[in-house]
Amino acid sequence: MKKKIVLVGLGLIGGSLAKALKLSTEHEVLGVDISDETLLDACSCGAIDRKATLQDLEEADMIYLCVYPEEVIRFIEEYGKRLKSDCIVTDTCGIKKQVCRQMNLLQANGNFIFVGGHPMAGKERSGFSASDPSIFVGASYLITPCGAPEWAVEEVSSLAKGMGFGRVVLTTPEKHDQIIAFTSQVPHVLACAYVMSPRCREHQGFSAGSYRDVSRVALINDELWSRLFLDNREALLREIDTLIGNLEKLRDAVAGQEEGELRGLLQAAARIKQEEG
Amino acid sequence: MKKKIVLVGLGLIGGSLAKALKLSTEHEVLGVDISDETLLDACSCGAIDRKATLQDLEEADMIYLCVYPEEVIRFIEEYGKRLKSDCIVTDTCGIKKQVCRQMNLLQANGNFIFVGGHPMAGKERSGFSASDPSIFVGASYLITPCGAPEWAVEEVSSLAKGMGFGRVVLTTPEKHDQIIAFTSQVPHVLACAYVMSPRCREHQGFSAGSYRDVSRVALINDELWSRLFLDNREALLREIDTLIGNLEKLRDAVAGQEEGELRGLLQAAARIKQEEG
Repeated sequence: MKKKIVLVGLGLIGGSLAKALKLSTEHEVLGVDISDETLLDACSCGAIDRKATLQDLEEADMIYLCVYPEEVIRFIEEYGKRLKSDCIVTDTCGIKKQVCRQMNLLQANGNFIFVGGHPMAGKERSGFSASDPSIFVGASYLITPCGAPEWAVEEVSSLAKGMGFGRVVLTTPEKHDQIIAFTSQVPHVLACAYVMSPRCREHQGFSAGSYRDVSRVALINDELWSRLFLDNREALLREIDTLIGNLEKLRDAVAGQEEGELRGLLQAAARIKQEEG
Repeated sequence: MKKKIVLVGLGLIGGSLAKALKLSTEHEVLGVDISDETLLDACSCGAIDRKATLQDLEEADMIYLCVYPEEVIRFIEEYGKRLKSDCIVTDTCGIKKQVCRQMNLLQANGNFIFVGGHPMAGKERSGFSASDPSIFVGASYLITPCGAPEWAVEEVSSLAKGMGFGRVVLTTPEKHDQIIAFTSQVPHVLACAYVMSPRCREHQGFSAGSYRDVSRVALINDELWSRLFLDNREALLREIDTLIGNLEKLRDAVAGQEEGELRGLLQAAARIKQEEG
């Protein structure tokens, strides 16, 4: 059955989802964006069928909110009551505890169903012009059901698989935020801290793969990531402190010229990395 | 003119250099290794023409010492006096200050010419079985001339270019070690400290490119890297401390919920990364 899907926010993720949905389904794919230019670009290249009207929102079977956390909440505060019964609302925020808690409260005022979502994909560039459905191929799609009925979770999940995601993982908002602090936020914090060394400006000609890999995500969207960091403050601080503690252990072994201790730490790290398979 | 080139140590780097020299030159390429099995493997696949004899060492036009720093020194202490006049001796050690200082002292007892070298390439696996000349393609070859005549530096440099290295950079041992501490050693320290988080074992399904990139080199050769770290102790400690200091700045901005400060730090990092072009 042909469904009406509305994407709110056609940036890197929203734009990529729109393109991927057009490629992998026969559904009607409509867009909402604060920029008319972006909407025009998205229409021109076939990423969306057209701009969504207020009536489209009211008739939508599914809405992807691809905007910052506060805007997800603001959107539902404004339109939540007008959505049709059983409309699935999902988001793409990189943190889930806060968004899911607020969305669950707002659900009381409407008939829509909220399913938290986090497509684990990104790029160093942002905006619709950088959108590309191939960033999803093989990636993880994290879902926090937050009490949504199974059929709705299944719907979000099967669309994700159709778009090329390699796996769908169901989890709780709490677990999501703690692990994401480690797998995604710390590498960004780290990349930024790393390139701030005065030696960074002299690296040309002296660097190989390990420099490139660690520094890659330092080309960061400061607005997006500062919000993600602050919204996931406690979990992130726990991870940064763990990292600093481990760096200090290695540092002290080097400073004290304790070769045995140093080798033991490196072996432990290599074993952890090896076991991930 | 056909030259006699001897590679001492047929591990990942020595084995890859042997293969690359066979592919890019007509020179005689001979090998020395503590393992007869490795020598046999190297002969069988054509990485070397044959095992080098003592006479080959005495007749060699060029010797690549592809072993740990202490063994570079030990080799020259043992054979330095027997090498023919103007034989070029070069090494592949990841640190240069200590090796170059000792080699310059040992030169007084022989007629060979020492040119410090550091092919900036690697892999997560080690040993001859992992050797592969394609790891050099486009990489940097760092040379610390340490007083060697220009023609000898040119010889090492032109062989490197022939093997596919993207660029040859001449530098001093001091500058080499300080920048390498940042571009190569810190990413390895970092990767190890990172995977030591208790959350690492739960990362499956929750990770994307940034996790993979930062953790990649945690699959570390602990014997090699602990020596490299200790041999470059002062420069490395300076870099680790700089990194911890920068991590603390970011940490404090998150802890204090100082969004402006946090964005400023992220912007500064993004600018540094952007400017590297």
